[in-house]
Amino acid sequence: MAKMKAVVKTKPVQGAEYLDVDTPKITQDEVLVKVRATSICGTDVHIYKWDPWSQGRIGEKALPQILGHEVAGEVVEVGSTVKKIKVGDYVSAETHIPCKACIQCLTGQEHICANLKILGVDRDGAFAEYIAIPESVCWVNDRAIPPEFASNQEPLGNATYTVLGADYNVAGRTMAIIGDGPIALFAVGVARAVGVTKIFLVGKYDFNMEIGKKLGADHLLYANKDDVDRVKFVKDNTNGFGADIVLEMAGSPQALDEGFKMLRKGGRFSAFGIASESPTLIDYNNGIVFKGSQVHGINGRLMFDTWFRVRNLLASGRLDISPVVTHLYLLSEFAKAFEEMMARPRKSAKIVLFPDKKEYEEARRRRGMR
Amino acid sequence: MAKMKAVVKTKPVQGAEYLDVDTPKITQDEVLVKVRATSICGTDVHIYKWDPWSQGRIGEKALPQILGHEVAGEVVEVGSTVKKIKVGDYVSAETHIPCKACIQCLTGQEHICANLKILGVDRDGAFAEYIAIPESVCWVNDRAIPPEFASNQEPLGNATYTVLGADYNVAGRTMAIIGDGPIALFAVGVARAVGVTKIFLVGKYDFNMEIGKKLGADHLLYANKDDVDRVKFVKDNTNGFGADIVLEMAGSPQALDEGFKMLRKGGRFSAFGIASESPTLIDYNNGIVFKGSQVHGINGRLMFDTWFRVRNLLASGRLDISPVVTHLYLLSEFAKAFEEMMARPRKSAKIVLFPDKKEYEEARRRRGMR
Amino acid sequence: MAKMKAVVKTKPVQGAEYLDVDTPKITQDEVLVKVRATSICGTDVHIYKWDPWSQGRIGEKALPQILGHEVAGEVVEVGSTVKKIKVGDYVSAETHIPCKACIQCLTGQEHICANLKILGVDRDGAFAEYIAIPESVCWVNDRAIPPEFASNQEPLGNATYTVLGADYNVAGRTMAIIGDGPIALFAVGVARAVGVTKIFLVGKYDFNMEIGKKLGADHLLYANKDDVDRVKFVKDNTNGFGADIVLEMAGSPQALDEGFKMLRKGGRFSAFGIASESPTLIDYNNGIVFKGSQVHGINGRLMFDTWFRVRNLLASGRLDISPVVTHLYLLSEFAKAFEEMMARPRKSAKIVLFPDKKEYEEARRRRGMR
Amino acid sequence: MAKMKAVVKTKPVQGAEYLDVDTPKITQDEVLVKVRATSICGTDVHIYKWDPWSQGRIGEKALPQILGHEVAGEVVEVGSTVKKIKVGDYVSAETHIPCKACIQCLTGQEHICANLKILGVDRDGAFAEYIAIPESVCWVNDRAIPPEFASNQEPLGNATYTVLGADYNVAGRTMAIIGDGPIALFAVGVARAVGVTKIFLVGKYDFNMEIGKKLGADHLLYANKDDVDRVKFVKDNTNGFGADIVLEMAGSPQALDEGFKMLRKGGRFSAFGIASESPTLIDYNNGIVFKGSQVHGINGRLMFDTWFRVRNLLASGRLDISPVVTHLYLLSEFAKAFEEMMARPRKSAKIVLFPDKKEYEEARRRRGMR
Repeated sequence: MAKMKAVVKTKPVQGAEYLDVDTPKITQDEVLVKVRATSICGTDVHIYKWDPWSQGRIGEKALPQILGHEVAGEVVEVGSTVKKIKVGDYVSAETHIPCKACIQCLTGQEHICANLKILGVDRDGAFAEYIAIPESVCWVNDRAIPPEFASNQEPLGNATYTVLGADYNVAGRTMAIIGDGPIALFAVGVARAVGVTKIFLVGKYDFNMEIGKKLGADHLLYANKDDVDRVKFVKDNTNGFGADIVLEMAGSPQALDEGFKMLRKGGRFSAFGIASESPTLIDYNNGIVFKGSQVHGINGRLMFDTWFRVRNLLASGRLDISPVVTHLYLLSEFAKAFEEMMARPRKSAKIVLFPDKKEYEEARRRRGMR
Repeated sequence: MAKMKAVVKTKPVQGAEYLDVDTPKITQDEVLVKVRATSICGTDVHIYKWDPWSQGRIGEKALPQILGHEVAGEVVEVGSTVKKIKVGDYVSAETHIPCKACIQCLTGQEHICANLKILGVDRDGAFAEYIAIPESVCWVNDRAIPPEFASNQEPLGNATYTVLGADYNVAGRTMAIIGDGPIALFAVGVARAVGVTKIFLVGKYDFNMEIGKKLGADHLLYANKDDVDRVKFVKDNTNGFGADIVLEMAGSPQALDEGFKMLRKGGRFSAFGIASESPTLIDYNNGIVFKGSQVHGINGRLMFDTWFRVRNLLASGRLDISPVVTHLYLLSEFAKAFEEMMARPRKSAKIVLFPDKKEYEEARRRRGMR
Repeated sequence: MAKMKAVVKTKPVQGAEYLDVDTPKITQDEVLVKVRATSICGTDVHIYKWDPWSQGRIGEKALPQILGHEVAGEVVEVGSTVKKIKVGDYVSAETHIPCKACIQCLTGQEHICANLKILGVDRDGAFAEYIAIPESVCWVNDRAIPPEFASNQEPLGNATYTVLGADYNVAGRTMAIIGDGPIALFAVGVARAVGVTKIFLVGKYDFNMEIGKKLGADHLLYANKDDVDRVKFVKDNTNGFGADIVLEMAGSPQALDEGFKMLRKGGRFSAFGIASESPTLIDYNNGIVFKGSQVHGINGRLMFDTWFRVRNLLASGRLDISPVVTHLYLLSEFAKAFEEMMARPRKSAKIVLFPDKKEYEEARRRRGMR
Repeated sequence: MAKMKAVVKTKPVQGAEYLDVDTPKITQDEVLVKVRATSICGTDVHIYKWDPWSQGRIGEKALPQILGHEVAGEVVEVGSTVKKIKVGDYVSAETHIPCKACIQCLTGQEHICANLKILGVDRDGAFAEYIAIPESVCWVNDRAIPPEFASNQEPLGNATYTVLGADYNVAGRTMAIIGDGPIALFAVGVARAVGVTKIFLVGKYDFNMEIGKKLGADHLLYANKDDVDRVKFVKDNTNGFGADIVLEMAGSPQALDEGFKMLRKGGRFSAFGIASESPTLIDYNNGIVFKGSQVHGINGRLMFDTWFRVRNLLASGRLDISPVVTHLYLLSEFAKAFEEMMARPRKSAKIVLFPDKKEYEEARRRRGMR
């Protein structure tokens, strides 16, 4: 069997290795994808660091395992029962692999399937020359979207679902977005593209805040400075009512506390950030009950309603995510990329890796990098 | 000016007095209602006890003040600018008096108005022979609903809104209702009437649990007994998934913890109960974020969508709340009624008071009491 | 290969034959079901008669073909890639076979797939001892539901989706149901079970109207009698406003005209009935535009949200469809059953056929027939 | 009493007169507004022409009556019971005056009140120096919006409600807009601002189509040319599925026919255009029933949810309606303006009138006209 290059987690310590491994063999309902671009998610960083979450969620026994799950590539082989995907298709992958049998899967909530498996977490991932993907989570890309953006559709889908929720109409509304990680920045761009008319971005790092501004944030509020009363600022700029919608994408106690305070009565609170302390102390009475809030937990993206929206937003040019895609690297340079991801204060947002040098160079040219 | 009998909070200590006071004078946009029946809410008990909440919310300066806000009666006088209400109308009152100018009021959320005033809390209430009510919160009753039920439409509205939320379709779903106070019991009845197909009632008191059973609960789970693992029981009886909908109507740490655990992924959590500890510790990550839950804070009732539904449910006979209306008293017997309300273990659910002896006797006859 | 009995359309004329045919061979993603009960749909009658619709939709070239699509049975064999269904499962079938690749299939609307195939129309059906069913449309029944009811879940699903639509909250509302065919009668039962508080049933046949009354219709209005102004009657009984919801399930010009007139401003109109004249003359301006109506075309049932609701309604006993299931026959008696179905005035609602005599006798016993 | 200038319909023939009339006297719940800008609606043209609709809807007995209902101005006097509006407020008016007592008014659908009165149709309008407006329909403008745009908020509200409907999430969707009148052009702008990712505009007049292009239409399709198969074009550019949403804003038989054909299965059809032939022939079966369409009649705007969105879209600069506001005139030049409105092929979109010359000149300066 042919070999391929891959970034593999081999040992239960920080780091990963760039190795020659077997090219994946697909089962009858899978497709084999030649990876053109693959981007790094915060989850990959957790696994790279082998932090307590990774130790519990993945575990030493699962190793060695290939990292990564954000991907764009070409289908080079399809299993015998594959129907909708063809060799030559330009695809990306939904990361949530549903069982198709539970109540969630049978009622339009496959993204929170009772028996969810996750690409790059529960099976080998995309930091490689090839990846095997179940047809059920294969998504055919619009060729108008270049690979370095197409691989970002998965996290952009998180952002889009956090902004739009289950068909909540945000057009002509005000919104506070708390957090300045890459998905929060994507959320700013989506919010701007779908007609949110006032966007408050609460974050910490100049590098990211500047990106948020480029994507359309109207007001930047620093979470780590005390010059401004952030809650008061949001209220003062929303006729005293508070923001119609709050996206909590940070998870810190301060973010949760201020998020519920910034929300107007009867508003919507998208709970995307994982609370850093669990169980979590919140102002349940004032923030939810008395306020008549709608709080929506966000895990994944709608399969595949969100993907259609993301594709359309990117392919139409309505949404330009260029400012968020800050770095491109060769796959072999993964270690440098992870260093970049872990640096604080942040100096990067999304980093895309390319197994192939020619793809890498073309992408750099498209992005005006050299 | 004519005098009337009323139950008045005169001093900042437990209790109230049955006094002769001035009959209210109405302003141009109010109506004067001759009270036929008025029922006791938990809020009235808080004020009666003059507990810390009452001391902060109402305050000594507001006294003397007439208690009560659940009411049914006949309009005997209308202000000069009153348009839709006429003398002779048989009415009840929405308790939430909206400002009509804030964003909530102008977008269909008057019940959580930014400048909300509450009947019997921010102004004189209904434990009297007459009450002045702003036309804007006056609701014309269906004459098929007797006064002892009509006065209960306000708390029944809480229950109905908790069950149905903002147009969430509960028909053919499973539901766990946590709490066995009167509004939770009403919720059981509503859930049964609107096609919830499996109802788990979690409560403490035999007296109330039996009422819950009469109203349609399929499974009774005692919160204060350890013979059954309640979370496991709910899951075992919902194909392992958990309840589609959880109504949290108790507010205790145990209720909040179990409520989120009983909920299935992607389910809906109606947050009606006021948490007994504030700020509140909840399993935010597992209960909301990862689960993709929809949490909806419930405060009041939709004005007046919920009222239409409540009226139709009662007038059509689809919903029979008889088992919840456990006691009828003369208004003068208020002290006995409050004792009844405060007794633990509970021996009463809803208690209705009648200023007029003839009304009282007719109601007793209708209810088969003697 | 083993033979089985089946009701087969062999020639492009009215009628069908009871023949020995090959037992179906399943493909890898199908299951083989031993039919316990199968019920007759209006579509089967169209095909039986070989009317113009059948001639165009199915065509002579497709013959011979086995009729029928409403079914309940036991799985006796599963294909090699079948995952969720097991031998021994008690199942029914969703009739709409989706492609899983179009935008509808990928966004929760599989029931209106762009490339829909229909069981018993585009492939062999259920009027036989065995039927092959794609796993994707296989539904595991609750054993509390007997086969003569379980086979009716498919049309009951039509009714349920017509009543509930896409999460439209009908509880505590008024509803006019126009039509008295079996699915309209099911709709009456569902409406009653989910808390519709006033149900107007408009129909023609005493036999069916009586069933409608048993299922919970509050008012019977004859479409073929002029003693009552039906539109005025509905308005007079809804405070002059009109019905909150109208289910149009007849398709005649009169039904469409009166349906839109009976609807209140801002109400919802479920368009289930196929118009008998096409293109169709409607009062578009007054019935839809000025009224601000919500008109929803109903085709099939939500896959599988509606199935969950139907299962729960039946298994819980909240909904009893006994009065609609008027006749049980042996499969071999199919000709008599079709005569019964075609008789006018109607003397039957739903007719269930049993390939096996023992099943038939047990079902008769359960239904108290002899 | 002081006199003012006004454009008055005095006789039941085409035309109107510029007269000195009494300044309106307000009742206790009204405000008096000094008109800064007022724009011409198609309804005004109907009344100006005194066409059959005007003869039936308004009638000779109502004359003399002041025309116009789209307005922006300053409050100069308030009635004794007015609460939220103050002298000096910069306001516009919702045209639909609700009764506040019917089921629509009491459940969030005031815009389709059962007893609706319309400004400029059922009472004197805005083509004057002053207008009396009930407080209930008074809307406080954002000062960032100049009068010539603020008076357009009412028709822009129609467009916004047609695009967004009752909280239908259009972001990342495709949309066909049929019609090129001013409200259709506004709809293009709104659609673009709220993230519709592909907009097909079907119209007739070069002048208007060019405006549509400026506002963001991606594809222009001429309804009066046969070079392109419009339905096929829309399908070919939506992966063969058809548009997710169709806004029917023309009302011609061709528009209705093509509109339903362009719609994808399960899509949404906003019925804003008044059908030119009534009753109306539509392909009910294929366009609504089989397709599973959601058809929504649009009459007015949500009160006041749509107004908030419109205000936010304009004040934030997310939506620029400059290209639609093609002409500014002095109120005294009304006759020329009406000629302009009635010209075919169209050479104007929205025309704004100014009672005051200084306002007029400032507006021209702001718009870069001279």
